[in-house]
Amino acid sequence: MKILAIHGSSRSNGNTEKLTAKALEGLNVTHVQLRDLQIQPIDDLRHEPGGFKPVDDDNDHLVNLILEHDILVFATPVYWYGMSGIMKNFVDRFSQNLRDERYDFKAEMRKKQAYVICCGGDNPKIKALPLIQQFNYIFDFIDLEFSGYVIGQAGKPGEIENDRQAIQYAIELNEHLKSL
Amino acid sequence: MKILAIHGSSRSNGNTEKLTAKALEGLNVTHVQLRDLQIQPIDDLRHEPGGFKPVDDDNDHLVNLILEHDILVFATPVYWYGMSGIMKNFVDRFSQNLRDERYDFKAEMRKKQAYVICCGGDNPKIKALPLIQQFNYIFDFIDLEFSGYVIGQAGKPGEIENDRQAIQYAIELNEHLKSL
Amino acid sequence: MKILAIHGSSRSNGNTEKLTAKALEGLNVTHVQLRDLQIQPIDDLRHEPGGFKPVDDDNDHLVNLILEHDILVFATPVYWYGMSGIMKNFVDRFSQNLRDERYDFKAEMRKKQAYVICCGGDNPKIKALPLIQQFNYIFDFIDLEFSGYVIGQAGKPGEIENDRQAIQYAIELNEHLKSL
Amino acid sequence: MKILAIHGSSRSNGNTEKLTAKALEGLNVTHVQLRDLQIQPIDDLRHEPGGFKPVDDDNDHLVNLILEHDILVFATPVYWYGMSGIMKNFVDRFSQNLRDERYDFKAEMRKKQAYVICCGGDNPKIKALPLIQQFNYIFDFIDLEFSGYVIGQAGKPGEIENDRQAIQYAIELNEHLKSL
Repeated sequence: MKILAIHGSSRSNGNTEKLTAKALEGLNVTHVQLRDLQIQPIDDLRHEPGGFKPVDDDNDHLVNLILEHDILVFATPVYWYGMSGIMKNFVDRFSQNLRDERYDFKAEMRKKQAYVICCGGDNPKIKALPLIQQFNYIFDFIDLEFSGYVIGQAGKPGEIENDRQAIQYAIELNEHLKSL
Repeated sequence: MKILAIHGSSRSNGNTEKLTAKALEGLNVTHVQLRDLQIQPIDDLRHEPGGFKPVDDDNDHLVNLILEHDILVFATPVYWYGMSGIMKNFVDRFSQNLRDERYDFKAEMRKKQAYVICCGGDNPKIKALPLIQQFNYIFDFIDLEFSGYVIGQAGKPGEIENDRQAIQYAIELNEHLKSL
Repeated sequence: MKILAIHGSSRSNGNTEKLTAKALEGLNVTHVQLRDLQIQPIDDLRHEPGGFKPVDDDNDHLVNLILEHDILVFATPVYWYGMSGIMKNFVDRFSQNLRDERYDFKAEMRKKQAYVICCGGDNPKIKALPLIQQFNYIFDFIDLEFSGYVIGQAGKPGEIENDRQAIQYAIELNEHLKSL
Repeated sequence: MKILAIHGSSRSNGNTEKLTAKALEGLNVTHVQLRDLQIQPIDDLRHEPGGFKPVDDDNDHLVNLILEHDILVFATPVYWYGMSGIMKNFVDRFSQNLRDERYDFKAEMRKKQAYVICCGGDNPKIKALPLIQQFNYIFDFIDLEFSGYVIGQAGKPGEIENDRQAIQYAIELNEHLKSL
């Protein structure tokens, strides 16, 4: 089982990253920081003659990483009750990926599993539920199995340690992933 | 009543734009296309000494526009069951706006009203509801009154014309805005 | 097209009933008031030897009505952000209907369309969205097509007249149903 | 800390009950089974002269129990993506409780905390999220603090044992309640 953790935070060592580290401790994981990549916003050319045009950025690199792994962990802080903008731009590009002839994006995703790990400061166990529902629709559209999520309550750096429920679930998830 | 329409689409003349045009027909509206602006993703420095640093992009310009208008229309296509990535990056920057000492963002937003207009191709009247809930939390946080929303069903260019319910509500909204 | 309106209100002539009347004006409609029927809460015997036992109440009568109609309108006030308890008890019995050998409930529902009409007093256009999502899951489970919904804002008797958007949707729906 | 567990299931010893037992093990708890009480559906007389009339059923008894406890656990199976009909009828009566002059329902609820424990068979960690959102709105309206929830995945009797995440949450909650 090869695991890819896709991090959407703008800062290093934040609560979401810490919670994700707990969940993936001792496992063989490739980490990718979206903030270190250039992923252009989608240019929606679905309905143009010729369709999408190649974009000179890191999306190809990221798609290749995705194709090589079995489990995808979407680790994003809850920014304004959604995923971060840089993660959203990455997801928006799925529209282009789906039409890329170099691979069959949906067929590849069908073989994988996805997890979402997110932390927020404003009552995320209620207010991040629309985000979870969104991820569910996203994964459903590309036939990617949604295997679980962890929502952590944390604002200031390090605060995630106080959310025993989230920490416990990360540990649980860790054991589960190790058993695969 | 001065109206600012903030467009989040990557392409011109799409369904969301058409539906928004119907809602704002004959009114005095400033239109801004996020795709024509440079808005950097948030760099979350809330917890750093010194806090946020000035960013050399169009966010100041956009905030100035917002401050000058009474009604804000968030017009975004439904990309992957959420607002577009470029609109999300703009919203993420609210965290920085809230800490900007040149204006009191929340106090200013409290005087305004917001509408959301969005179109999607995959059953948006159900699957865009998490997006509406997200906007509700966003507006709530900044004390911006959420005055209404229109969800249109449309995939291919021009298809919004077939969604009579959405068109009718746009007309309704238009009459309402004219009566203010 | 034979239409069955299933009313979940505890009082006659309320806002939901008025809004539903507007949507169904001039059409051939059978109205059924759940408050006038006896529908027992589900007794979940799915996992008992022998399964469900016949219940001596009006559920059979109601199922027969459902089977005879093509379009089902679920008209419920928003009570505590959900459908009314008497409507919920009726829906809970679907578990029993699905196992009733006198008819194939799911196969029958697959031929029909459903609409939801609901009114609430506390910001229902946001706070009734979980209810709409619930109905979507319910209809999805029984393969019943969810053809549309109207959410009205109204507290005191008659107040629905002030919600022009909802009234307009009802008129729109009326025209649509007449065109079938 | 006096704990009241309000059970909404139609059958004894189901998965929700088992999960709740795990969460409340070793604590001093009053259990009440809604299926053993008579709670009439609400008769919405808010707008009638004279208002609500006394109802001869077990609601008074249940309200008295509520008033005497500090922590309320709403334990309901997920029936059709919502709380059970008998629990909904109990919640609907809050409208009457709020107008009962023998106590100040809202002021009393403000002193308490609520938890929700629910189990469902059809992907509840996604499809029960609208139910959680509903409970959030319900508790919010009566100023009752929503302190946490556990969603278990389980269909057949006993299956909840296989949901390690839910079991772990229940244990966590148990430790938390013991520490109060």
